[in-house]
Amino acid sequence: MTTLIDGRSIAAEVRAEVAAGVAQLVAARGAPPGLATVLVGDDPASQVYIRSKRAACTHAGMVDLHRHLPVNVSQQEACAVLDELAGDPAVSGILLQLPLPPHLDAEALLARIPAAKDVDGLTTANAGLLAQGRPGLRPCTPAGVVRLLDRCGVELRGAEAVVVGRSLLVGRPMAQLLLQRDATVTLAHSRTRDLARVCLRADVLVVAAGIPQLIGADAVKPGATVIDVGIHRVDGALVGDVDARAVTGVAGHLSPVPGGVGPMTIAMLLANTLAAAEEQGKLGA
Amino acid sequence: MTTLIDGRSIAAEVRAEVAAGVAQLVAARGAPPGLATVLVGDDPASQVYIRSKRAACTHAGMVDLHRHLPVNVSQQEACAVLDELAGDPAVSGILLQLPLPPHLDAEALLARIPAAKDVDGLTTANAGLLAQGRPGLRPCTPAGVVRLLDRCGVELRGAEAVVVGRSLLVGRPMAQLLLQRDATVTLAHSRTRDLARVCLRADVLVVAAGIPQLIGADAVKPGATVIDVGIHRVDGALVGDVDARAVTGVAGHLSPVPGGVGPMTIAMLLANTLAAAEEQGKLGA
Repeated sequence: MTTLIDGRSIAAEVRAEVAAGVAQLVAARGAPPGLATVLVGDDPASQVYIRSKRAACTHAGMVDLHRHLPVNVSQQEACAVLDELAGDPAVSGILLQLPLPPHLDAEALLARIPAAKDVDGLTTANAGLLAQGRPGLRPCTPAGVVRLLDRCGVELRGAEAVVVGRSLLVGRPMAQLLLQRDATVTLAHSRTRDLARVCLRADVLVVAAGIPQLIGADAVKPGATVIDVGIHRVDGALVGDVDARAVTGVAGHLSPVPGGVGPMTIAMLLANTLAAAEEQGKLGA
Repeated sequence: MTTLIDGRSIAAEVRAEVAAGVAQLVAARGAPPGLATVLVGDDPASQVYIRSKRAACTHAGMVDLHRHLPVNVSQQEACAVLDELAGDPAVSGILLQLPLPPHLDAEALLARIPAAKDVDGLTTANAGLLAQGRPGLRPCTPAGVVRLLDRCGVELRGAEAVVVGRSLLVGRPMAQLLLQRDATVTLAHSRTRDLARVCLRADVLVVAAGIPQLIGADAVKPGATVIDVGIHRVDGALVGDVDARAVTGVAGHLSPVPGGVGPMTIAMLLANTLAAAEEQGKLGA
């Protein structure tokens, strides 16, 4: 029996918690948290993502401080906008939507975001805090995965966890977060030999490889928890990095695509924005 | 047949390379690199370490800019010294010898060291650069281990590597460095269940657990490369985290204690100091 993990309902719980936290903050301080999403240009996929983030932010009672910059904005102008947001006490969190047009230096722009407002958890400063196990803002998708695992009662302490994929956005911080929860963590990737054999040892398998249906039944230990971070459109249908049909009946828990990890990302963005606002309040900002 | 890894001779090679690099830098720029070791108080073990580092630095042609602060130095005074060193163009690298007296906040003091002068590679900024796979100064001991592995011709790409111990100083950065070299990396630690079974899968096993003779023959795959980072005095003899006698004949390569990893740490400190001076030169400092 494979239990599907209901990411939509767990994300809804997180959003409700955030909305309650926002209301408390408003009662205590008068001002709600503000989220500054920054979109450069008119990439249709980015526009969809940004629209969802802004709607979720408003829905949670936060202030939408969106900035839309023209596709031909200069590095200097983009820097100036980020610096202004960094210094603005009404801005609790800054999210620079990636990818950027190729003439911009994304790394240099991300570096303008202060660690305390980096609600995407992508700056080098927050990567360092995570690597050292110190408090900081964590990347939204892996933080959402931990939330799913906790909500499903999956024991992480002492568990064998395998993360497939080593992206800065998901795989690497995922491994760090699982380590912080006392799992024995293996990070596998494109150079891993005999991937199925490595995955077979996992009590908890998180797949963020970006390859449709990479993981089949031969790579899943019976009863393991399988989290599928991938999402791809193949022949008109949405599929993940896991072959869900093959793995059903082998895995103990499985996060479906869609409706598994996906909804958690925006929910954790809201949670990060609230946490950032709370910390800034403590510091008297 | 187990081949012992001769850390002393490999460290001597590194030191000779650094001395040659220093001579080149002096020829090009006139000024040699300067290393500011900072010792607080009179802990005898720390004094021994600092003496070795200063001697190695001078021997490589660098300038010894040591500072000795009294055991009762205030946080503010210690900060002021680090800030002065941070701003001094003659100082290529700063090394704050740990542990500090308990009245000082080590984390806050380390944070005063600019990433570009952090030749111990211990600041959060350098941990973030390492976690993101970006250029930066790496912690000396794990960097020394990679050097040993390379010098012995151990293939890391696609190898199964297991690191035992998750300290900020060794285990965590070690795992990152092995990942950067395309190994499939498992980080095991005190909460790992059945440690021997986990270690048995390793082509490359790095043990930095701080427990004398933790790893026996039952934890080593025949032919594996075993790197022992531990050093302990037990019944008057120096031993590592690996039971060397038991593992001899099973491991393919083994780093002995003493004479394995130990000599590499100071050698890599010198290499970091030279690299820092070279980078600062490029920036026109």
